[in-house]
Amino acid sequence: MKKGYLRLPGPTEIPEEVLLAMSKPMIGHRGKEFKEIFSSVSEEIKGVFQTQNDVLIFPGAGTGGLEAAIVNLFSPGDKVLLISVGVFGNRFGEIAERFHLDVEKIEFQWGKTFDLQIIKERIDKDKGGKIKGVIVTHNETSTGVLNDISSLKDVLRNHSALLIVDAVSSLGAVDLKTDEWGIDVVVTGSQKALMLPPGLTLISISPKGWDAVEKSQIPKYYWDFKKAKNNLIKGQTPYTPAISLIFGLKESLKLIYKEGLDNIFSRHILLSKAFREGIKCMGLTPFADDHCASPTVTAIKVPDGIEPSKLRKKMADEFRMDIAGGQQKLQDTIIRVGHMGYVDKLDIISTLWALGMTLEELGFGADITSAIKKAQQVLKKEG
Amino acid sequence: MKKGYLRLPGPTEIPEEVLLAMSKPMIGHRGKEFKEIFSSVSEEIKGVFQTQNDVLIFPGAGTGGLEAAIVNLFSPGDKVLLISVGVFGNRFGEIAERFHLDVEKIEFQWGKTFDLQIIKERIDKDKGGKIKGVIVTHNETSTGVLNDISSLKDVLRNHSALLIVDAVSSLGAVDLKTDEWGIDVVVTGSQKALMLPPGLTLISISPKGWDAVEKSQIPKYYWDFKKAKNNLIKGQTPYTPAISLIFGLKESLKLIYKEGLDNIFSRHILLSKAFREGIKCMGLTPFADDHCASPTVTAIKVPDGIEPSKLRKKMADEFRMDIAGGQQKLQDTIIRVGHMGYVDKLDIISTLWALGMTLEELGFGADITSAIKKAQQVLKKEG
Repeated sequence: MKKGYLRLPGPTEIPEEVLLAMSKPMIGHRGKEFKEIFSSVSEEIKGVFQTQNDVLIFPGAGTGGLEAAIVNLFSPGDKVLLISVGVFGNRFGEIAERFHLDVEKIEFQWGKTFDLQIIKERIDKDKGGKIKGVIVTHNETSTGVLNDISSLKDVLRNHSALLIVDAVSSLGAVDLKTDEWGIDVVVTGSQKALMLPPGLTLISISPKGWDAVEKSQIPKYYWDFKKAKNNLIKGQTPYTPAISLIFGLKESLKLIYKEGLDNIFSRHILLSKAFREGIKCMGLTPFADDHCASPTVTAIKVPDGIEPSKLRKKMADEFRMDIAGGQQKLQDTIIRVGHMGYVDKLDIISTLWALGMTLEELGFGADITSAIKKAQQVLKKEG
Repeated sequence: MKKGYLRLPGPTEIPEEVLLAMSKPMIGHRGKEFKEIFSSVSEEIKGVFQTQNDVLIFPGAGTGGLEAAIVNLFSPGDKVLLISVGVFGNRFGEIAERFHLDVEKIEFQWGKTFDLQIIKERIDKDKGGKIKGVIVTHNETSTGVLNDISSLKDVLRNHSALLIVDAVSSLGAVDLKTDEWGIDVVVTGSQKALMLPPGLTLISISPKGWDAVEKSQIPKYYWDFKKAKNNLIKGQTPYTPAISLIFGLKESLKLIYKEGLDNIFSRHILLSKAFREGIKCMGLTPFADDHCASPTVTAIKVPDGIEPSKLRKKMADEFRMDIAGGQQKLQDTIIRVGHMGYVDKLDIISTLWALGMTLEELGFGADITSAIKKAQQVLKKEG
């Protein structure tokens, strides 16, 4: 028996329809059939981004999309304010520094959300508008924290900075109103809530973002937004697109709109709540505060005396369930469980059970019955 | 009836085993199973590159791989000698210029191969070793010309320049002895002779190439070779890999080694010869000279009075066979037929027939019978 259960914060499980769509024979990327598919997915994906802005799709990992945003929007020496609450916030800052931006980082405690007041004070102080961009992570995959991006709208109301959001592990699972909240650039990847394999990065750019693109002085070729947009108008891409993943995207968009975005957002909130309440009953402590808990990934403090790597290995060996470990300084203290994309109530129950059983075998007296009962109550009451 | 026949110079048709391998459920990219697969394909692919050098695999198009080579190997102001015989040679040069390299271009007539004597003279003149790299296309997809890369070894014997080869439309179909011919960097893509969908770029780097990487001053993050190598040692990638395409690569490598590289090279030479001789009998003229004809793609001069775009549309409409048009200044004069990767004798016969039938309907008296008979003779005699 080899049935596996993927509970990582990406890559995530993929619906059968999507898997099969990706095994269709190749077609030419300059032909009519592909143009139709690419034009339609590029239009339809705007709904998931909740935007009227252009959305560009490149073959690449999400990190490639973050790099693309930096090299297209800025010039060396440009000041950006980086708001970080964990590994992926820091990574975005590292990329900006690598391309010689002047990065001012405000890093908040891992496991917490950003403090809006501190950001507001910094922005208000910048009377001359030196800050060209505010860079922030929507959902910090390394800590399971969701930042409230909507709250930044007021803070930036009288400031000219671009708002750039890393939504790799949130877009399509968590409400992100790109246009309503005034977000200029949103970057995501295919392997999270979009229910696809990794290999695509998708980026929306506002008209204000396009103005910045015109001024950008960082050399770029593969990630060139202007070239991509000029091709998109013709239903094409500058270089060969990842055709099989585009086939998959067409199919996953069908599933997304069939369920409805609002239903998807509610489902993720409900499932994450059931999971959190469940693990608390088991005697475990979530790493992130309740009020900023991510709907897509839950980080859990591992009880004293248990090694996270051993726990994960045991869970993989016994139940073939893959969960993630902590990154960098959290390596020895947390585990992370993904519940995004193609995931439903039963997956939460089975994950609680497998986690509880594994902990029990490692000598931690997990109250599995209470955990499942509690999750069941949450799912029943609000589901 | 919707059965399609893909005769483009990429993307190419994909074996059923490979298509099905790519529809397997996702697995974690930091887990044991993926590490094993990634380590083994990264080793096995070296055979196709005919190298002992490291081969790095990134999610991205082939053009991304060309950019990766430039930003990892050079610094702004570095002089490179670009040898171009067409669109893709020029593109590689454009990328180098975009990243502020000092590009000296020697462009040869489109449809011809490079003139070794001219290259030799330029290299011999560079006594001070100012030229840091020689950049050349193995198989120029835009003209159907194969450059003899082996001949550059002697030319560069007493020169320190890196030899960088774009082998996007040749690797795995045409003999390219990376180590024996002293090639420092080879770049390819997944969607050609490797019989996969687009979405992966693969790059080999020699020890001398790695020395250059150490000195490179161009900013890079996503394409960082050093980071990729440090991860490869652990069977990993710095950022999320295109897992489904890696599954496909594992399968296509099986097929490649089952047939044997030498047999694959012979097959491509035979099929291209049969195709060329066939179209000549039909009254058509190949764009490239016989002695430098590409084994993977044949460019054909379109007879006077026939518009290439109409021909292609008719062929697609009537036979659902996709062939490519000319690029840039060749747009109105040539068509291009791909015969690489998953292609065999019967595909050559059927392509000749469909092309002949289409031409006939457009008023060109193509001698289909002679063409097929001639191809048959070539296939019978040498096959």
